[in-house]
Amino acid sequence: MTEGVDTRFTTPAMAAIFAPERHVRQMLAFEAALARAEADAGAIPADAAVAIAACCDVALFDVAALHHEAATAGTLAIPLVRELTRRVGGEAGKYVHWGATSQDVIDTALMLQIREGLDLLIGDLLQICAECADLAERHRRTLMAGRTLLQQALPITFGLKAARWLALVCRQAHQLSERRERSVALQFGGAAGTLAALGSAGILVAERLAGELGLPLPDLPWHSERDRVAAIAAAVGMTAAAMSKIAGDLVLLAQTEVGEAFEDPAPGKGGSSAMPQKRNPVDSIGALAAARLALGLVPVVISAENEHERGAGGWQAESIAIADLFRFTAGAVARVRQALRGLRIDEARMRANLDRDGGLLMAESLAMALAVQLGRPEAQRVVQAACSRAVASGLTLREAALDDEQIRAVLSPADVERALDPAAYLGSADALIDRALEGYRAIRSAMEVP
Amino acid sequence: MTEGVDTRFTTPAMAAIFAPERHVRQMLAFEAALARAEADAGAIPADAAVAIAACCDVALFDVAALHHEAATAGTLAIPLVRELTRRVGGEAGKYVHWGATSQDVIDTALMLQIREGLDLLIGDLLQICAECADLAERHRRTLMAGRTLLQQALPITFGLKAARWLALVCRQAHQLSERRERSVALQFGGAAGTLAALGSAGILVAERLAGELGLPLPDLPWHSERDRVAAIAAAVGMTAAAMSKIAGDLVLLAQTEVGEAFEDPAPGKGGSSAMPQKRNPVDSIGALAAARLALGLVPVVISAENEHERGAGGWQAESIAIADLFRFTAGAVARVRQALRGLRIDEARMRANLDRDGGLLMAESLAMALAVQLGRPEAQRVVQAACSRAVASGLTLREAALDDEQIRAVLSPADVERALDPAAYLGSADALIDRALEGYRAIRSAMEVP
Amino acid sequence: MTEGVDTRFTTPAMAAIFAPERHVRQMLAFEAALARAEADAGAIPADAAVAIAACCDVALFDVAALHHEAATAGTLAIPLVRELTRRVGGEAGKYVHWGATSQDVIDTALMLQIREGLDLLIGDLLQICAECADLAERHRRTLMAGRTLLQQALPITFGLKAARWLALVCRQAHQLSERRERSVALQFGGAAGTLAALGSAGILVAERLAGELGLPLPDLPWHSERDRVAAIAAAVGMTAAAMSKIAGDLVLLAQTEVGEAFEDPAPGKGGSSAMPQKRNPVDSIGALAAARLALGLVPVVISAENEHERGAGGWQAESIAIADLFRFTAGAVARVRQALRGLRIDEARMRANLDRDGGLLMAESLAMALAVQLGRPEAQRVVQAACSRAVASGLTLREAALDDEQIRAVLSPADVERALDPAAYLGSADALIDRALEGYRAIRSAMEVP
Amino acid sequence: MTEGVDTRFTTPAMAAIFAPERHVRQMLAFEAALARAEADAGAIPADAAVAIAACCDVALFDVAALHHEAATAGTLAIPLVRELTRRVGGEAGKYVHWGATSQDVIDTALMLQIREGLDLLIGDLLQICAECADLAERHRRTLMAGRTLLQQALPITFGLKAARWLALVCRQAHQLSERRERSVALQFGGAAGTLAALGSAGILVAERLAGELGLPLPDLPWHSERDRVAAIAAAVGMTAAAMSKIAGDLVLLAQTEVGEAFEDPAPGKGGSSAMPQKRNPVDSIGALAAARLALGLVPVVISAENEHERGAGGWQAESIAIADLFRFTAGAVARVRQALRGLRIDEARMRANLDRDGGLLMAESLAMALAVQLGRPEAQRVVQAACSRAVASGLTLREAALDDEQIRAVLSPADVERALDPAAYLGSADALIDRALEGYRAIRSAMEVP
Repeated sequence: MTEGVDTRFTTPAMAAIFAPERHVRQMLAFEAALARAEADAGAIPADAAVAIAACCDVALFDVAALHHEAATAGTLAIPLVRELTRRVGGEAGKYVHWGATSQDVIDTALMLQIREGLDLLIGDLLQICAECADLAERHRRTLMAGRTLLQQALPITFGLKAARWLALVCRQAHQLSERRERSVALQFGGAAGTLAALGSAGILVAERLAGELGLPLPDLPWHSERDRVAAIAAAVGMTAAAMSKIAGDLVLLAQTEVGEAFEDPAPGKGGSSAMPQKRNPVDSIGALAAARLALGLVPVVISAENEHERGAGGWQAESIAIADLFRFTAGAVARVRQALRGLRIDEARMRANLDRDGGLLMAESLAMALAVQLGRPEAQRVVQAACSRAVASGLTLREAALDDEQIRAVLSPADVERALDPAAYLGSADALIDRALEGYRAIRSAMEVP
Repeated sequence: MTEGVDTRFTTPAMAAIFAPERHVRQMLAFEAALARAEADAGAIPADAAVAIAACCDVALFDVAALHHEAATAGTLAIPLVRELTRRVGGEAGKYVHWGATSQDVIDTALMLQIREGLDLLIGDLLQICAECADLAERHRRTLMAGRTLLQQALPITFGLKAARWLALVCRQAHQLSERRERSVALQFGGAAGTLAALGSAGILVAERLAGELGLPLPDLPWHSERDRVAAIAAAVGMTAAAMSKIAGDLVLLAQTEVGEAFEDPAPGKGGSSAMPQKRNPVDSIGALAAARLALGLVPVVISAENEHERGAGGWQAESIAIADLFRFTAGAVARVRQALRGLRIDEARMRANLDRDGGLLMAESLAMALAVQLGRPEAQRVVQAACSRAVASGLTLREAALDDEQIRAVLSPADVERALDPAAYLGSADALIDRALEGYRAIRSAMEVP
Repeated sequence: MTEGVDTRFTTPAMAAIFAPERHVRQMLAFEAALARAEADAGAIPADAAVAIAACCDVALFDVAALHHEAATAGTLAIPLVRELTRRVGGEAGKYVHWGATSQDVIDTALMLQIREGLDLLIGDLLQICAECADLAERHRRTLMAGRTLLQQALPITFGLKAARWLALVCRQAHQLSERRERSVALQFGGAAGTLAALGSAGILVAERLAGELGLPLPDLPWHSERDRVAAIAAAVGMTAAAMSKIAGDLVLLAQTEVGEAFEDPAPGKGGSSAMPQKRNPVDSIGALAAARLALGLVPVVISAENEHERGAGGWQAESIAIADLFRFTAGAVARVRQALRGLRIDEARMRANLDRDGGLLMAESLAMALAVQLGRPEAQRVVQAACSRAVASGLTLREAALDDEQIRAVLSPADVERALDPAAYLGSADALIDRALEGYRAIRSAMEVP
Repeated sequence: MTEGVDTRFTTPAMAAIFAPERHVRQMLAFEAALARAEADAGAIPADAAVAIAACCDVALFDVAALHHEAATAGTLAIPLVRELTRRVGGEAGKYVHWGATSQDVIDTALMLQIREGLDLLIGDLLQICAECADLAERHRRTLMAGRTLLQQALPITFGLKAARWLALVCRQAHQLSERRERSVALQFGGAAGTLAALGSAGILVAERLAGELGLPLPDLPWHSERDRVAAIAAAVGMTAAAMSKIAGDLVLLAQTEVGEAFEDPAPGKGGSSAMPQKRNPVDSIGALAAARLALGLVPVVISAENEHERGAGGWQAESIAIADLFRFTAGAVARVRQALRGLRIDEARMRANLDRDGGLLMAESLAMALAVQLGRPEAQRVVQAACSRAVASGLTLREAALDDEQIRAVLSPADVERALDPAAYLGSADALIDRALEGYRAIRSAMEVP
C-alpha cells in the first residue's frame, strides 16, 4: 500500500489517519473553522465564512498535486491556501486563511490527526487489557517459573504475569488519554505569534476557533516550543515499549525449550520457507519490530531544535516522524492484541519447567523456612550448600534437603515438603492480581467502556 | 571531580544526589525502613528492627569497596546486604533485608534519588521562570524582529519572546512536579514479584514501607515494567530540550551580525585562546552541549527491554543512564539560568535590525491594510511586487509603497505610515505576555513559592 | 506518492530503488541466479534452472498481494516462493528456492537494492562536489568573516568555506564507495547457516551464486551478525550529517541580518502564506529536515539485537529502517545540490559584515603583529584592552589601535593598517583550497568521472 | 572511582585513557610538539621550543583546578595555555600556543586519546578472537540446535556458532584498526582554519607537527567537519553491538530451560540477595548493559551540528560522548572476554535439547531427502503433515515418518534414519569453521600478533 511504511508494521486504520488525504482534510477543517470563528468575532463578513466553509471539502482538491507543489513551496499550506482561494473566488476568496500563518493550519491539522490517532490507540489498548484481564483471571492458579535475568527464580502464576501486563497496559491507556486531554491543543498565532493581522481581535478569534474545533486553547502559541508534541511522542513511544515488553515475553515463552505459550496457529501463519516444522510467533516478532521502529522516532521528535519564532528543519521533520511513530505503534499494538487473542497456554509444560533442575527454584522458600530459626544469612548459606550438592550429584533439592543434617535439625520432612511446594510459596500473588483487575475496572469505568 | 561527567556540564548539587555515596545512603534508608515496616507488621522482632536501623548509616560503609565488589557480584545489593548483616550481627542480623530482593532496594534507592533530583530541577526552573518573567515585563515594549526559518518575519517584542520562554519553562516545572507526584514509587516485590518470602504479610509490609519512606505504593511491583522510570526520563529530557530552545535563541541573538543579547561578561568568561575580541556566549553553549548529552540518554532509558520478572541488561544500564540524564539536565538548567541572569539586551540594535532591509518585515502589515479592500490574495500580490521592486532598486518598502499606484489608490500616505509602524502591528503581544505571567503566578502559588 | 515518506524528503529515483516492486524484483533476481548457480554446480537439473529463471519476472507477480500475505506469513519469501513455484510448475517447480532460506533471498535482495542506492548517492555527491569546487575556485579571493561559536573570529574566504564543504563531501563519496566494495555481500547460508540442504555442494553453489549476482562472497553467512548492514547505515547517516552541515551553514548565511548567500529564487519557492517579503531557504531547510529523519534511523539499525541464528524483531525492523534511511538521505543530498546550484553570493555584504563592529575580528592579526616583540600573552592583553576601549567608546579597532601608546611604541601606522587588512591575514587559505581541489580531482579520477 | 561511569561498565585501563589527567597530558604533548615544529620551521626561536617543551609535564599542573576554570572559560585550553605560559615565563613564554587555537589542542589531544583507546580495544578484541577460535576448534563436532526466531531450526555445531562470533569479532578488530590508520588525524588550523597567525609557514608547521605527534596530516583542518570522529564513534559503537550479540546469545544459552553454556562460576559471582540457587550470567549481562550505554552515545556524536568554522554546542558535547563511548565499549569487551574465558559448555544438554520435541528440527532434512523425488513443495507438504501428526499424537518425527505411507514409498527405514541424523545434516559447517579460522589467522598475522 505505502512504500515508506510496510503494511506489516502498521494498521489500515492508523495509516488512514496519517495519510496525506487526511492531513489535507484536517487543514480544510481548520480553514473552515477559522472563517466561522472570524465571522463570529466580526473580523470577516459572515457570508465570506459560509462561502469558504462550503469549499473546505477534501474531495474538491488534488491531494497528490498539492504535496508535489509543497516540495518547492516548502510547505503544504501555500498551495492549499492558493487553491482554496481560487475555488472560493469573488469577495469571499479575499478572506481565506485570514490572519493565519502556514504553521497554524499545519500544526492544528496535525493535532486533529493526533487526537484521532490517540483515540485509536487507546481503544486498541483497552482491548489488550481485556485479553490480559481474562488471562489473569483464568490463570490465577496456573503455576509457572518466575524468571529473573532469564534464570528461574521463584514460582509465580501465569495469572500474575498477565496481571502485570494488564497493569502496564492500563497505565499506557491512561497516559495516552491524559495526553489527549492536556497536550493536544490549537495552534494559532499568525506569522510571528502575535496574531498581528487580527489587530485586537486575535485572542477572541483564537477562543472561537478553539471552540469550533473542540480543541483546547493553549496559554500561548507554541510554534517553536514543541513540548506538547514531544510529550505526545514520548507517551506513544512508551506505549510501543510496553508492547515490546509483552511481545518479548511471549517470544521467550514460545522458545522450543520453554514451550509455555504459543500464538494461535492460523493457516499460512508463522511457517518457514525452509523448515516444515516451524511455528514462529509471527505476531510477537512483528510487534517487536514495529516497536523498535516506533521507539527510533521518539528522539527525532523530542530533540528537535526550533529556532526563534519558527524552526528551520526541526519542525519540518517533526510531522513526518510523528506520523511514522503513530503508524508503527499502531502496528505494535495490533500485533500484541493479535498474539494475545487465542494465546495457547501449555499449563503442563509450565509445571514441568517448574520442576526442572530438581526444584532448585524453591531454594528461597526453603531458606526462608530455615531463616526463622537460623537467621537469613545462615539459612542462605545452608541452602546454597544443599543446592550445590544437588547440582553436583544430580539430586533434586528435595533429596538434598532431606539428606542434610542442618536442615533436618530444624525442619521435619513434612516441613521440607511444604517449603518445596510451589503452590504454597506464592505470597501475595493473588492479592496483586486483584489489584491489577481493580485498576482495570477503574480505568474502564473512567473511560466509560461498557 | 568525576571522570564520566565533566564538571562543565552538571552542577555540584546534582552530582552529589547521584553520587555513589548517596546511592548507598538511600539503599540503607530502604533497609532501615524495611526493618521498621516489618517489625510494625509483626514479620520480624521489634528489637531486630531497632538494631538494623541503627547500622543503616552510610558513614559506616566503604562505598568504593562496595562498588568494586558489585562488579563481580552483578549488583550492589549483595555486598551491601552482606556488610550490613555483618555489622548488625547477632539475632537481629538474621532479619536484614528480610523478604526483599536486590532490585527492591536498588530501584527504591534510585527513586529516592530521583525525587531529590526532581526537586532540585524544579527549584532551578522556577528561578529561570523568575528571570523570564522579569524580562517579559521589562521588555513588554521593546520592539524586535520576529524570525521564522531564521528570516525576519514580523515585529514582536522581546517581552513576548521572554514570555514564551516563561510559559515553556513553567510547563516543564509543572510536568516535573507531576512526575514527582505520580511516577516516583516504591519498589517492593521480592525475588519474583510475589512477596512470597513474607507469606501473607506482603502487602501490609509494602504499605508500611511506603509510609516509612514517604513514597507512593504502586499498583503492583514493577521490576520489569519500567514505564514510570521512562516517563521520568522523558520528562527530564523534555526539560533539557526546553533549555536547548532558550540557549539556542540566545546564541543566535548573540551573533556578531545580530548583536541583540549578550551574556553578562564575567572576568575570565567567554574569551578565546587566540582571538582577543571574543565574547563567546559560554553559558548558552554549555547549555546546548549539556542538553544534547541529556537528550542522548532518553532513548537508552525508554527503549530498554526487561525480560520476564527481571531484565538482563536493560535494567542494569538504566540507572547509569538516569543518573547521567539528571546530571546533564541540571547542567543545562544551571547554564540557562546563568545566561539569563544579567543578560544584556541591546534595544537599539533590536530596533536597528528591525529597520534593516528597508522595513520589509512590515510587508504583511501593509498587505493586511490593503486586504480590507483588495482581499488577501490580491493584497499579497501587490505587496510582493512592491517588495521585489524595493529589493531590486535598493528602496525601502515605505518608498516603494508610496510610489505604487495600486497602493496609493487604497491607502493615504498616513495610512501607509501607520501600516509600516512596527509598534502598531503587535496584535495580541501584550495580552499574550499577560497570559504567560498569569500562568507563572498560578504555578508559583501552586508550588507555594513565596 | 507514498504515505510513509513524504515526497518533500526523498527523490523519485531513490524511492523507486526502495519501492516494494523493486524488492520483489531483486528477490526474483536471487531466485533466478540461485537456480543457475545450482545447475552449474550440479545440484539441480539444468533445464529446471532455465524454467525457473524464465519465471523470475516481477511483471508476472502481484506485488501488493505478496506484501499483504507477508504480514501473516511473517516474511515476504513465503508467498513469493509459493507463487514462483506455482508459476514454474512441473518438474522444474520442485527446485525453486532449493536449499535456501527466507532470509537468504531477502537479505540478498536488500543488498542489491543497497548497491543501487549507494551508486545513486555517490553520483549525487559528486555533483555536489562539482558545485563546491566551482565555488571554491570562483570565490578564492572573496573575503568573508570566519565564525566560531557563531561569533566573528577571523577573516576567511568564501572559497575556503566551499573548499571545506568540498573535502567533506569528497570524503563521503569515498566512504560510500568503500562500503559498496566491502560491505555489500551475498547472503546465503540456508535455514541455520550451514547450507545443510545442499550437502557438500554448499560453498560451491555459494561461489557461483555470488558470481551470478556480481556480489562478493562473504567469509561466512551473516544472518545474525549485521555489522555489514550497520556499517552501511552508519556511512549513509554520516552522509546525511554532512548534508546537514552544509545546509545549516547556508541557513545561517541566509539570515536577514547576515545576508551573504541565498538560494536561487525559483517561482513558487520559499514564499510564505502570510508574509509577502519572505525568501525562505527552502532547499536548505528541506535538507536539514531530511537529514534529521535519516540520522534518527541509524541507531535503529546499528543497535538491533539478532538472537542466535536469526533475530526475532531486530532483523525484521532493519530493512524498513534501511530503506527509509536511504530515502531521506537521498532527499537531503538532492536538496543540498539544489541549494548550491545557482547559489547567490553577496560579496559586498560579506565584505560589509567583515567591517562590522569596527573590524574587531582583526584583533588576532594585530596581536600577532605585536607578539613578535611583546610575546603572545602581553600582545593579547594589549589588544584585548584596545578592543574593550573600542567597544566602549564606539571606535573602530583601527582608531583604538592608532590611539594606543603601547601599540604605537611597537607598530607604525602603516604596520597597523597592514595588520588590520583582512586580505593580508588569510594564512594558508589558498593552499588549503588547492589541497581540497586536488583531493577532488583524485576522487574523480579514481571513480572515473569524466 | 568515578561517578559518571560506574566501574561495573568500564575497565581501569580505558578509564585511565579518558581520565581528565590524560587529556591534559595529551594537550601538553601537543603544545610541546607545536613548539618544536615551529622552531623547526623557523617560526619561533629554537630555545623557546626547548623551554616550552620542558614545562609540558602534566605533573606540574593542577588538573582539577584547570577543569574547574574551564567551566567558566568555556574551554580547557584557556586556563591551560595561561598556566603553561606562566610556567615557561620569560622570552620563551611569549611563544606558547603560537598560532594555534583552543580547538587545535583539544581535538588533537582527543585524537591521541582515541588512538590509545583504539589500541586497547583492538588488543582485547584479539583476545576474544583467541577464545572464540579455541571454542570453534574444540567444538567442531559438538552438535546443538540452530535457532531462528528463537525456535529450533536445524542442527548446527557449537563450533560453528563460535566461528561466527569469531568472524564477527575479527571484522571489528579490522575496522577499528582501519579507523586508527585513517580517521585519527591531527587538528591544526588556527582560529578560523586558515593558519593565519603563521603567515605563509602554516602548512610547513602543520606537516612538522603531524610528524612530531606521529599523526596523519589531514587534507584540511576539520574543526566543524566531524566525519572522522563520527566514523570512529560508529566503529566503536558497532564493536559494542558485536559484544551485545555474543553476550545476548550467552544469556539465552544460559537460561534454566536451555542450560547449554554457563559462565565460569567464580566465588562471589552471579548470586542473588534472595535466591540461593542463582547462577546469573553476570558478565554477559554486564556486557549487554555496557553495550546499551555505548550504543546510546553514537547518535550524540554522529548527529552533532557544527556551525560555520566552529560549532556552538555540538562540538562541546562530542568529547564527553566519545569518552563515555570508549569507556562503556571497553566494559562490554572486557565482560565478553571474561564470559568466554572458562565458559562451561554442557554438550550433553545441547544434544538433549536437539532431541526435544521428537526431533522436529530434522524436518528440513527429511524434506530434502524426499525432495529429490517429490520436489521441494510436495516434500515440504508431506513433512509438514508428518510434523503435525507427531505434535498432535506425541510421537517423534521418526515414528511419524516411518508410519507415513508417502514417505515409506520414497525412503527406506534406513534412509529415514539417515535423514534424521543431525550429525549427517551439517552441510558446510566444517568448511565455514575453517574459513573463520583462516580469517582469524590472516588478521593475526596482519596485526603481527605472535
